[in-house]
Amino acid sequence: MKKRVVVSLGHQALGYTTLEQRDAVRITAKALADLVEADYQLTITHSNGPQVSMIHKAMTELRRVYIDYTPAPMCVCSAMSQGYVGYDIQNSLRAELLSRGISKTVSTVLTQVTVDPYDEAFYEPTKIIGRYMSKDDAETEIKKGNYVIEEPGKGFRRAVAAPKPIDIVEIEAIRLLADAGQVVIACGGGGIPVIEQNHVLKGASAVIEKDSIAGKLAGDLKADQLIILTSVPCVYKNFGSGRQEEIRCLTVPEAIACREEKQFGEGSMLPKIEAAIAYLNVCPQGSVLITSLDCVKEALKGKAGTIIRS
Amino acid sequence: MKKRVVVSLGHQALGYTTLEQRDAVRITAKALADLVEADYQLTITHSNGPQVSMIHKAMTELRRVYIDYTPAPMCVCSAMSQGYVGYDIQNSLRAELLSRGISKTVSTVLTQVTVDPYDEAFYEPTKIIGRYMSKDDAETEIKKGNYVIEEPGKGFRRAVAAPKPIDIVEIEAIRLLADAGQVVIACGGGGIPVIEQNHVLKGASAVIEKDSIAGKLAGDLKADQLIILTSVPCVYKNFGSGRQEEIRCLTVPEAIACREEKQFGEGSMLPKIEAAIAYLNVCPQGSVLITSLDCVKEALKGKAGTIIRS
Repeated sequence: MKKRVVVSLGHQALGYTTLEQRDAVRITAKALADLVEADYQLTITHSNGPQVSMIHKAMTELRRVYIDYTPAPMCVCSAMSQGYVGYDIQNSLRAELLSRGISKTVSTVLTQVTVDPYDEAFYEPTKIIGRYMSKDDAETEIKKGNYVIEEPGKGFRRAVAAPKPIDIVEIEAIRLLADAGQVVIACGGGGIPVIEQNHVLKGASAVIEKDSIAGKLAGDLKADQLIILTSVPCVYKNFGSGRQEEIRCLTVPEAIACREEKQFGEGSMLPKIEAAIAYLNVCPQGSVLITSLDCVKEALKGKAGTIIRS
Repeated sequence: MKKRVVVSLGHQALGYTTLEQRDAVRITAKALADLVEADYQLTITHSNGPQVSMIHKAMTELRRVYIDYTPAPMCVCSAMSQGYVGYDIQNSLRAELLSRGISKTVSTVLTQVTVDPYDEAFYEPTKIIGRYMSKDDAETEIKKGNYVIEEPGKGFRRAVAAPKPIDIVEIEAIRLLADAGQVVIACGGGGIPVIEQNHVLKGASAVIEKDSIAGKLAGDLKADQLIILTSVPCVYKNFGSGRQEEIRCLTVPEAIACREEKQFGEGSMLPKIEAAIAYLNVCPQGSVLITSLDCVKEALKGKAGTIIRS
């Protein structure tokens, strides 16, 4: 029986522009194909920060030039980004698999994720999106009801809430495809965050952490493993200091202890550890691998990366 | 056993801007929900002309303002449009079904469709895209290698090829979801047209007719019926003339005879009839219904629309 795995891809797997992404996904596809060759059954999720930001900027410029167009809300930009990123990942993975003699359906399922409108994240948005703005632009954003954070000496940036995912709306479609042994790309960019009101799903001004949704997805699919591919080869203690040391194995209680010691960077390693803990709570028999794209092949042999278990 | 149906939605089902689309899909969802209530098993495809055109314009404006972005090719814009339109359709259909007490997974599968690089359509592009251009803009387009058509007295417009669909790349994913009784939105905008070269799918400068792909999809899924929803309640003989008359039933040989008489408008009714013939060749036991969104409920009772059979 194949090992069912959810893989979470970070920014470095995708690049920042359309051309960069086209090239980056070719390298990413090699790592993913290594996993397929190692008889792993993949469901893939990915970040979309630069992509959704690019699309949002494009739609804003469109509105400036052609006034007959209405502005595109963030949820629409997010849906577009899932199409855009999914297209490139599914194409490059399909090609890489075929070049290795493996014929497998790879598809992208547009995914929405419900969030709680009373999630405390909405009270103090922390997820920075877009580029630095001038004070004038920041004031315009604030007038529009958006939340802006000042980074002293650098400028202003928009921030949105990063609420916890509650339900993956299209989970039955994703599960069916994964159960049939197909490769599925889903929950791109954390999923399109939506709030349910009287049967209607309304796009929320929020971003769901891609690691957070990867943990949720792995739990929902009862995956054997959650693989988080990021920019570092493994998790570190005292990261970035002179006393930095690799952590190769970690139990949930140890991870919680390290978290208490503030060992994990907020917005970088912390959400990955949180996702690991959430998934292992649902699937105590599972394991989490945190490593980089470059190291995934070595990590499969147990020679790199960090493994987290219950 | 439920009747398996492929529904093809035209421009009028979606509107032209983000706000228009949000409103239009609510009305479209009612017609689709009527079909679900009538125990039809739906797979939905849709046009994306105005949507992909909007996204293409937005990406062009982005490139003008931020030179670090590379231009987005048409295939990428098409992928984005599938995400955008799918999101709105799946949401509004889900809400409409829930309001009628029906809980059903509705999802969108990003879809690519292979075309033949030697398809004769590439030699003379006929599919008009985008708005009217000035002579200067038209010359710029021609220099870029694009094809431009002059409409005397009106201006210039870009044209791309409309080749025949060969294979729906993600058909196994679509079939699996449809077989499980889920509602699937697929092949949006005719599918992203791609040309296969050494295992790699390259985006083609082309548009696949949405009716053409609807016929192909219905054939691939062995659908019992293909429903083409358009702006007219049924097919007409001598359309638009004083001698216009409704056609309520049509056999394939009759349809071919009418086609020879040039009864069907190129770019409007003709591709629908062609799609119907192609599907009925694959599924001779099936039937095709051509009607409008407004008339679909009456058409289900046999009181409106045109039915085509082998």
